[in-house]
Amino acid sequence: MSFELTILGSGAALPTGKRNPAAQYVNCNERHILIDCGEGTQNQLRRFGIKIQKIRHILISHLHGDHFFGLAGLLSTMNLLGRTQGVTLYAPPLLKDIIELQLKASGFYYQFKVDFVPLEMTSMQKIMEDKLIEIHAFPMKHRIPTYGFVIREKPRERPILGEELRQDGVSLQAVPFFRKGIDYKDEKGKLFRAEDYTLAPKKARSYAYCSDTAYYEPLIECVKESDLLYHEATFIERHKDRAKSTLHSTAMEAAHIAQKAGVGKLILGHISSRYENTDPHLSEAKSVFENTLVVEDGMSFEI
Amino acid sequence: MSFELTILGSGAALPTGKRNPAAQYVNCNERHILIDCGEGTQNQLRRFGIKIQKIRHILISHLHGDHFFGLAGLLSTMNLLGRTQGVTLYAPPLLKDIIELQLKASGFYYQFKVDFVPLEMTSMQKIMEDKLIEIHAFPMKHRIPTYGFVIREKPRERPILGEELRQDGVSLQAVPFFRKGIDYKDEKGKLFRAEDYTLAPKKARSYAYCSDTAYYEPLIECVKESDLLYHEATFIERHKDRAKSTLHSTAMEAAHIAQKAGVGKLILGHISSRYENTDPHLSEAKSVFENTLVVEDGMSFEI
Repeated sequence: MSFELTILGSGAALPTGKRNPAAQYVNCNERHILIDCGEGTQNQLRRFGIKIQKIRHILISHLHGDHFFGLAGLLSTMNLLGRTQGVTLYAPPLLKDIIELQLKASGFYYQFKVDFVPLEMTSMQKIMEDKLIEIHAFPMKHRIPTYGFVIREKPRERPILGEELRQDGVSLQAVPFFRKGIDYKDEKGKLFRAEDYTLAPKKARSYAYCSDTAYYEPLIECVKESDLLYHEATFIERHKDRAKSTLHSTAMEAAHIAQKAGVGKLILGHISSRYENTDPHLSEAKSVFENTLVVEDGMSFEI
Repeated sequence: MSFELTILGSGAALPTGKRNPAAQYVNCNERHILIDCGEGTQNQLRRFGIKIQKIRHILISHLHGDHFFGLAGLLSTMNLLGRTQGVTLYAPPLLKDIIELQLKASGFYYQFKVDFVPLEMTSMQKIMEDKLIEIHAFPMKHRIPTYGFVIREKPRERPILGEELRQDGVSLQAVPFFRKGIDYKDEKGKLFRAEDYTLAPKKARSYAYCSDTAYYEPLIECVKESDLLYHEATFIERHKDRAKSTLHSTAMEAAHIAQKAGVGKLILGHISSRYENTDPHLSEAKSVFENTLVVEDGMSFEI
């Protein structure tokens, strides 16, 4: 099963020729998810060959324009292309009013359903779950209510050791229990232990998204042991005052979160337009957490 | 004095890799005007080397997203770049509510003033006037209230014939009258006629914008004798039914308006994404009005 992230926009509030505002596309076990949707996101999807109509879940972290000004245009394009399948939109409550007012002004209505899930939690909560994946949201520290997300595969099943099963004549009725790690007792009361007939399951993979936020230690628990963490790094330590006053993070602060949370890999984005060169971001982050990379639009990561 | 138009977006509701949604930039005697502002307009301004902060007047024809989804991002960028000079926004009334709701959601407020002039007229009206230019707006025929615009230089003054003035010993007090074409009587009651001491003034130039609209004959009077007319041509005659049902125009219908209004030149835009090749637009329009061109993003016209 694939678990892949594509960076559609890695810039901050001021778009540059090189960095579009925030947007990412995640394919997790064929669940197609858009995270944030800055102006021009539909162009970026087209540019990087991602089919707009596949997107089924849209997560909006907060209502600063660089994270959602492309949403109305994207939904409008989905509609014009004849979409009938619904979309679920997870976002702060006012976004619903904004979209409804724009629809009223246009006299248009979508031919597909938009289910709206308001984000208002004060601690980490599961906002979506199906057979294969879960999505959790949690509050961060920014000027307005802002949420981070963890997209996680469901715990994987334990692979069955067929040969051992046959040798011991264990009933096939035990298999669904064993896959979940549950022991099985047959009709005669004999106990068969799951761990004797299965292998340890592959680790369920997870991806965490934290943008925008100041350095905020409660995030460590939320993103703990994620395979991949995207954390905003709008600034570097030299502009720490600016990070503090705008409630953004420096690259080094992002690295501290990654290190304390024990994630697999850290990627940095939401880079302020003032930086043409991101070598300082990288070196200060690597001094704390080695497995770090500064993203660019179009980069893709297999999780 | 310059009077120049730059096409920023020549597409219709569905943006393509080649055509951005509606937006144009006009410099008329150093008055810097943006007409419509589809998603991505700020990128197009950057791409074509136009300074965002020069824009002082923004005209929004109607509230379909492909004509205004780039506005909130553009205003936000103006603000982030430290703008203090005001902007005047001429648009249907609901746009004010949309912008205010987005500002409320973001917790941001602009550091510059946005003067809002609501468009609600049922016949042609002057919406802006200063020493050098005038802008007029007029209703068109579309699914929601939609307005066209004429940007016009003020009538130019008559050039003075200095030699003739001196030969006849005419008082210099006559000059301001003569420039405006008014005769002058000196203290002894002697009449001097303006036309004897001046040349005919150069024609005041004008540019007319009609997008979006069905074929609508009242437009002929509004855009009469414009030097340049931009008229939408979303469709061609082969898709006339589609034009009728969506209240758009075909290229031939646009040409009929141009021909009946006696304009200098016709340019066609708002081309539906279904047409990769616009030769049919051009040939059907030229069969009615020869001086026609189909625009592309980035084209520039001296009026």
